[in-house]
Amino acid sequence: MDFTGVYHRTTEQMSYPLNESELIVNLKTGYDVKQVFLYYGDPFEAGILGGKETWTGIREEIFYRKRLKHQIWWTTTLVPKYKRCKYYFELHTDDEIWYYFEDGFLTKEQMEMEGRMLQCFTVPWMNPADVNRTPDWVNDTIWYQIFPDRFCNGTPEDDREGILAWKNEGAVTNEETYGGNLEGIRQKLPYLQKLGITGIYLNPIMEADSNHKYDTKDYTRIDPQFGDAKTMRHLVKEAHEHGIRVMVDAVFNHCGQNFAPWLDVKKHGEQSPYAGWFMVNDWEQMNKEASTRDGRYYSFAFADKMPKLNTNSEGVIHYFQNVCEGWIRDYDIDGIRFDVGNEVSHRFLKRIREHVKAMKPDIYLLGEIWHDASQWLMGDEYDSVMNYPLMSGIHDFFIDRTMKKEDFEYMVNHCYTMYMQQSNNVLFNLLDSHDTERLMNRFRDLDIFYQQLAVLFTMPGSPCIYYGTEIAMEGSFDPDCRRCMPWDNLHTEENQRRIHEIQKLIHLRKTEPSFKSLYFHFPEEYRDDRLVHYIKLDRNQNQIEILLNCAQEDVTVQEKGEILFQRQYKNGRLYPKGVLIRRR
Amino acid sequence: MDFTGVYHRTTEQMSYPLNESELIVNLKTGYDVKQVFLYYGDPFEAGILGGKETWTGIREEIFYRKRLKHQIWWTTTLVPKYKRCKYYFELHTDDEIWYYFEDGFLTKEQMEMEGRMLQCFTVPWMNPADVNRTPDWVNDTIWYQIFPDRFCNGTPEDDREGILAWKNEGAVTNEETYGGNLEGIRQKLPYLQKLGITGIYLNPIMEADSNHKYDTKDYTRIDPQFGDAKTMRHLVKEAHEHGIRVMVDAVFNHCGQNFAPWLDVKKHGEQSPYAGWFMVNDWEQMNKEASTRDGRYYSFAFADKMPKLNTNSEGVIHYFQNVCEGWIRDYDIDGIRFDVGNEVSHRFLKRIREHVKAMKPDIYLLGEIWHDASQWLMGDEYDSVMNYPLMSGIHDFFIDRTMKKEDFEYMVNHCYTMYMQQSNNVLFNLLDSHDTERLMNRFRDLDIFYQQLAVLFTMPGSPCIYYGTEIAMEGSFDPDCRRCMPWDNLHTEENQRRIHEIQKLIHLRKTEPSFKSLYFHFPEEYRDDRLVHYIKLDRNQNQIEILLNCAQEDVTVQEKGEILFQRQYKNGRLYPKGVLIRRR
Repeated sequence: MDFTGVYHRTTEQMSYPLNESELIVNLKTGYDVKQVFLYYGDPFEAGILGGKETWTGIREEIFYRKRLKHQIWWTTTLVPKYKRCKYYFELHTDDEIWYYFEDGFLTKEQMEMEGRMLQCFTVPWMNPADVNRTPDWVNDTIWYQIFPDRFCNGTPEDDREGILAWKNEGAVTNEETYGGNLEGIRQKLPYLQKLGITGIYLNPIMEADSNHKYDTKDYTRIDPQFGDAKTMRHLVKEAHEHGIRVMVDAVFNHCGQNFAPWLDVKKHGEQSPYAGWFMVNDWEQMNKEASTRDGRYYSFAFADKMPKLNTNSEGVIHYFQNVCEGWIRDYDIDGIRFDVGNEVSHRFLKRIREHVKAMKPDIYLLGEIWHDASQWLMGDEYDSVMNYPLMSGIHDFFIDRTMKKEDFEYMVNHCYTMYMQQSNNVLFNLLDSHDTERLMNRFRDLDIFYQQLAVLFTMPGSPCIYYGTEIAMEGSFDPDCRRCMPWDNLHTEENQRRIHEIQKLIHLRKTEPSFKSLYFHFPEEYRDDRLVHYIKLDRNQNQIEILLNCAQEDVTVQEKGEILFQRQYKNGRLYPKGVLIRRR
Repeated sequence: MDFTGVYHRTTEQMSYPLNESELIVNLKTGYDVKQVFLYYGDPFEAGILGGKETWTGIREEIFYRKRLKHQIWWTTTLVPKYKRCKYYFELHTDDEIWYYFEDGFLTKEQMEMEGRMLQCFTVPWMNPADVNRTPDWVNDTIWYQIFPDRFCNGTPEDDREGILAWKNEGAVTNEETYGGNLEGIRQKLPYLQKLGITGIYLNPIMEADSNHKYDTKDYTRIDPQFGDAKTMRHLVKEAHEHGIRVMVDAVFNHCGQNFAPWLDVKKHGEQSPYAGWFMVNDWEQMNKEASTRDGRYYSFAFADKMPKLNTNSEGVIHYFQNVCEGWIRDYDIDGIRFDVGNEVSHRFLKRIREHVKAMKPDIYLLGEIWHDASQWLMGDEYDSVMNYPLMSGIHDFFIDRTMKKEDFEYMVNHCYTMYMQQSNNVLFNLLDSHDTERLMNRFRDLDIFYQQLAVLFTMPGSPCIYYGTEIAMEGSFDPDCRRCMPWDNLHTEENQRRIHEIQKLIHLRKTEPSFKSLYFHFPEEYRDDRLVHYIKLDRNQNQIEILLNCAQEDVTVQEKGEILFQRQYKNGRLYPKGVLIRRR
């Protein structure tokens, strides 16, 4: 047997309660393992630990599996009668049988050796307080990300000096201000509703000096350029009336250079009551203006104008508990997206979560984490994260033509075996954002663009499109990905066709439960190397299939059920860059 | 390359801050990997995430490794200048080179492909609040576990009715009371000090009906059979004067049938203000007297007289925060051992920890967990756990003669790669307890007994001997392992010889820093299959070597340095069951 291929621990996403009664048990093995059985039962079935009784469990085969690049992922769900469970595995290859315990592999002979202490895997108690619970509504949500300065100016008549004329075309810089504001967003709610959007994710709106507002000056005041508390309250209220939830951006990892406590520290140094709110290492040099590579204080990246907040400090924790409390109380927001959500302390996040979930239990807490975020998704910090691994996996598959359709399968399975189901269900799936080049720019091909969107809309979690994606807006890396929304050009036939395409996908996501479900598999019905093919199922076993031709030749596809979405498909032929979604 | 053999995640014990500056990075690979390089650097070295800059790291070889049963464990320590770190690995087999990223393995060609998103492993920020910190003193401690009713009766003149005459020999039952008490322990402090003990772990001493006291009636009152608050205060004070710390047993998973809140619930059912303190499922049937297999309420194992406390409830959390607070304030205890420490909720433990560490930062919080306890050892629950995996591993090696010395090495390495160094350093190592048969009973052989003790005293963590181990006391499974300490027989020459043997081991543990250090390796100097041989090093590179002959033939050992401890060794021959510890 390929021993190194076998992996299980009773931690993280390998073994966890899905709710108060169901326990998910996952196991990885090499491809040489053909059959897996689980022996499980109550740990006290045969008396208490350390005693001389011999514990035996019930034997049950594990049937359900997923393919990873080098391993099989086996999964099963148990319902431990007394909320506790003890187990070990029996692994079959073609010619061997091994028993897998917490401390290793045993033969049948070793297992039956008199007096041997068998270290089973143990789930001691499924405590309700520790169950990872995420808000149900997120899985039903279609997100739309808005970069406020560039989405819509709802009060052009009030433009103060320095605001540039709206630019329906062409490049922008990070120094320019175009006057987009909350009132503008409010006015566009019917537009978003018509598109099918049910959630807005707003880039920062609290007072800040820059146009991107990631350098907060006042966490308790809406940036005057965007509006005020009243405009924000209106926006959220009307959004709710349009069936749209609102998530705001929380920049708690660092502040801007004009945040009052930072100004106080700059003035009074170590004597400031806020000295412990930041991470200053050299009090003498701190007022220097230059990159923070010298480490005189820590900052976001090396930006001296974005000093890092010390989220280890009780003062900072209390302060931001109050900030969040105010946002919920004053604006009734539905979600908080934590910027640079991986650098703030775990302690901070646990305390913030306790505080805000006590106020609004179904608020969605989303972390900006680009890498494996397991540690943040144990149930007491974030509900989920921005699914950059999926974005990156899809992208890499499209550019790397040495990858075969199996690699696509492995990648998707990798993304959806990293976390617990509760978090997978509310992952924030995206293909681009204000931090990346726009999707359309990666391949500059409308068909590939829609192929990737078709994947986005059929993945578990919740899909988010960045404003302008509905018209396949272009834009390179920051700042080019933050162009003005070209409202004046929306009426063109081309744009209307594109909007219609997105509407179709959104509509399908909302009406076909299998689109958003957690259940999918990759059948082996076609031989073509880069013809991606997967099936999604809802709880009632209704099935849809998705076919993406990522090869350079066209493919004949079998006749099947009703076509739900198609591009580059005609008379049974799926052309390169084509996509087909249909019932099965 | 053996891809399935390669494993890394940025979680748990694979990648973690050892303190505020050092980051430990561990990697598992198959045995086909001959060389490993790490590329690491600051995540923002080349600009911010999502941008178009290309990040490269510094290349550094990883030299240090341990052997596991099927894999090599590679380990290195980094000092990230700005508290954050991004990295990937370069793996060399004899004829291949692979680059290992968070999302998989890449060839050099794939890695250099234009536009590919390279998902590096990321440690976003080493926050001080999240560093796992454990009390320093524990690693210096030699523990002695006392089962109070059976250790020493210090006030025989005050014996109340029902107390049996002290039994210097022979069996006992769980229904008998022998009058051991706190005053008895106090009187024996000089004895323990002379033995070399520096920590006492006391089985429960709070008021309870049984003799084992695991069925607490009053968590705030010392059991009158054992003494009172004053006796306890005296005991701890005098223990401290003797250089001995005191750890008490906290039975917070369940209570006894006469715990006042439970009595109230039995009387008033759902109407009781304590209804939520327990886990009652069937209010009508709850007063039935029978095993709890019917699930009418949950209990410890299926014992209806030990109803489970609902550690998910705020009321219970507050109550036990106060209980612990009282123990620290009134008795000045140094450690708390949590009975059935795996079944209480994580939320409960986090809250208890916050509370007690705020009062006494270096208090030792020890969980009774028999299995992999990673989830409880992230730094915000227990400091460490009872090292049953080591006990079980040592035992299995001695009974399973098909296991070779490499298996011993793999087992030890397995035990010490499960957790972070901070927890390894304060593991509570034991070979028996009130919950198991006594060590002497497992093999009924004094030489094997000392071989195992030699291992115990040379392992990282802190060793604990169960009372009576100094005279190789016998006893089968509970209740036989709880016999009276035979004070009247201690003077015999045989017992004095045995006491002296333990004193030697304890003395060495205290005077030779390499005994307790975390650094060890297994040289390949002997060919004999079951001649266990390992070397321990202190921080100054002083070395000792341990040799255990677990085979059936004697072995010639090379001439080396000063002998520190020996049994069954003579003129360069180590006989079966022999042990030799010497300087190198």
